[in-house]
Amino acid sequence: MTRIPVPSGSLYGLANLPYGVFSPDGGEPRVGVRVADSVVDLAAVLGDDVFSWPSLNAFMEQGHERWVEVREHIIDAVSDDLPDEAVHAVDAVTLHLPFEVADYVDFYASEHHASNLGRLFRPDSEPLMPNWKHLPVGYHGRAGTVVPSGTGIVRPSGQRKAPDEAAPSFGPCRRLDIEAEVGFVVGTGSPLGAPVAVDEFAERVFGVVLVNDWSARDVQAWEYVPLGPFLGKSFATSVSPWVVPLLALEAARVPTPLQDPEPLPYLREKNPWGLDLDLVVEWNGQVVSRPPYREMYWSPAQMLAHMTVNGASSRTGDLFASGTVSGPEKDQRGAFIELTWGGKEPLEVGGEPRTFLEDGDTVTISATAPGPGGARLGLGAVTGRVLPAAPLG
Amino acid sequence: MTRIPVPSGSLYGLANLPYGVFSPDGGEPRVGVRVADSVVDLAAVLGDDVFSWPSLNAFMEQGHERWVEVREHIIDAVSDDLPDEAVHAVDAVTLHLPFEVADYVDFYASEHHASNLGRLFRPDSEPLMPNWKHLPVGYHGRAGTVVPSGTGIVRPSGQRKAPDEAAPSFGPCRRLDIEAEVGFVVGTGSPLGAPVAVDEFAERVFGVVLVNDWSARDVQAWEYVPLGPFLGKSFATSVSPWVVPLLALEAARVPTPLQDPEPLPYLREKNPWGLDLDLVVEWNGQVVSRPPYREMYWSPAQMLAHMTVNGASSRTGDLFASGTVSGPEKDQRGAFIELTWGGKEPLEVGGEPRTFLEDGDTVTISATAPGPGGARLGLGAVTGRVLPAAPLG
Repeated sequence: MTRIPVPSGSLYGLANLPYGVFSPDGGEPRVGVRVADSVVDLAAVLGDDVFSWPSLNAFMEQGHERWVEVREHIIDAVSDDLPDEAVHAVDAVTLHLPFEVADYVDFYASEHHASNLGRLFRPDSEPLMPNWKHLPVGYHGRAGTVVPSGTGIVRPSGQRKAPDEAAPSFGPCRRLDIEAEVGFVVGTGSPLGAPVAVDEFAERVFGVVLVNDWSARDVQAWEYVPLGPFLGKSFATSVSPWVVPLLALEAARVPTPLQDPEPLPYLREKNPWGLDLDLVVEWNGQVVSRPPYREMYWSPAQMLAHMTVNGASSRTGDLFASGTVSGPEKDQRGAFIELTWGGKEPLEVGGEPRTFLEDGDTVTISATAPGPGGARLGLGAVTGRVLPAAPLG
Repeated sequence: MTRIPVPSGSLYGLANLPYGVFSPDGGEPRVGVRVADSVVDLAAVLGDDVFSWPSLNAFMEQGHERWVEVREHIIDAVSDDLPDEAVHAVDAVTLHLPFEVADYVDFYASEHHASNLGRLFRPDSEPLMPNWKHLPVGYHGRAGTVVPSGTGIVRPSGQRKAPDEAAPSFGPCRRLDIEAEVGFVVGTGSPLGAPVAVDEFAERVFGVVLVNDWSARDVQAWEYVPLGPFLGKSFATSVSPWVVPLLALEAARVPTPLQDPEPLPYLREKNPWGLDLDLVVEWNGQVVSRPPYREMYWSPAQMLAHMTVNGASSRTGDLFASGTVSGPEKDQRGAFIELTWGGKEPLEVGGEPRTFLEDGDTVTISATAPGPGGARLGLGAVTGRVLPAAPLG
């Protein structure tokens, strides 16, 4: 039997307990929970086959009451001795995509990010569109290209046309960027015709992941009118391996910034679901930004209510992400296009001036949140390395 | 034993043989093929369990060679006597969504439609965006709200702001519209990092459905900048119950209209995949439009090549639709916003002037295609009735 040591100050103590899908050396993927530097095999410990699946979906589908119950069982179990074969060192296992993605929606909920991108993409217009403060602007992304942290990111090729070029050309992306985002995983879906009320958020949403919405800015700038981003985004969206349950984030809840004008009634929260998450963006191991999630204008509860207010159904495994998290300060911006102001103000990375991503670069986004009694919780990390473009066919 | 009578002139003769998912009275959903006015239970006739699934996905995943082989087996089998219990009257079965939708992408491939919508949505700008003739513009839609023909369409509610209103209001859509489209179902997917060449289309795509991309124009007009349509579309997208195999459409192949400027090399087709489909739009039983698919600027092979050229993977069950099919003539427009020029030129329907959809209205889109030897093939029909908005919560 094994007792998992939990050092004081661990970001993965008993107040956190994020879920993931792992395979032990030579074993099949299954659901685990992270405790300090260990992964606990939940099927082995709790004896429930729902954790033998290679995704969290079957468990998430069981609903909120069950999530509460299982969390209590886990806290009991991991506070005691566990069978040796149920405990693995986190460094010794392979981590997978933790859930099967149903639909993927990406919002645009940071006022700072939306204003910065407005200035960069549409320099002759108002930075924020007239609708922006009335609704959380969002769009659907490609669910099939959501990939687990660690997946290599092949530089995409595509059509791009610089403003000074007469015609578009085809080739590898020249402005490869990141977007540091927070993603929300729907645990229990809602049927067609039944909008999710803004106060049902915690009942429906299972947990939180970190997201890197890799972006080919040159492709995006050329393609995105009038139907929105498509190939500039759909080549890869990375998510962190650990889903932090919403149940662990009570101490992280904060009000959103003042919303003025007051949103329409279906977007008014009784109990705010802003979140006090501190993100950190590392470029080749060097911290280049610390985006504060608490600055996000729209809350995830408002995003879910908006996404379904037209009667659209939601499903277990739906992922909706916040859009780039950017704060008011320059070193709080969650995308390189903002950090380098469209490439005009290079950052010093590894002693060299840098703008967009080069082949071989690695980007890691991590985050922490306040937990109960002054503890900090970790949100795992989402990382990816840029690989050279495939040879043109 | 039963021999299925196939009247000469049937749109569902042996040259067609579309696949669907049906349940006989009291039975489980399974794969069938339509022959004249009958549905043949494929698991019962061919003895292969892949047809016992409640979707075509497992069969589609087997790949092109197998599709060819099964089609030959079906032609042999249905030309002969069949066991009584394997044959059902099409009117006596329930038809379901024929495939599980992985990702859903909607293109915008009609020059006439894109120009008309440009004039209506952005009257002060050029109707076509600068990118339009260089790439098939498209975006991701909501896979989870693709519904089978016959599903009632509850009028969506949402935010909308008329140009003369100071602020948006919330309420039922006032400009509910259709889009008559043709959809293409990916049979065999492609891995991340491996673009599908434009000439691989017929190898990868299993078949064709009709699509009604219901559209809340007032919601769409307010929300769609800068990230594209979202809730104005995501409440429902209806598809026809029969997937016509690409193998049945050889005689329908035509070149696309002249593409000028010449597209970039990855979009150049050696063997054109324009399709000579004649669509018919009926509003409460009255034909209001006959959109010609042969007028579409971009071919579906170009759409698939574009959709994956950035390295995005594709999956069995991916659905990509053409966007509204509109021809150059007024009575060839595939959306009411075009047919009534933004509501300013009502149509006479059932003796009354009509612009957008009212509760209780029914829209049916059907199509035919040339088959071998002068035969016509039917594409089934996609139909839906508008139901009143849900009471506001």
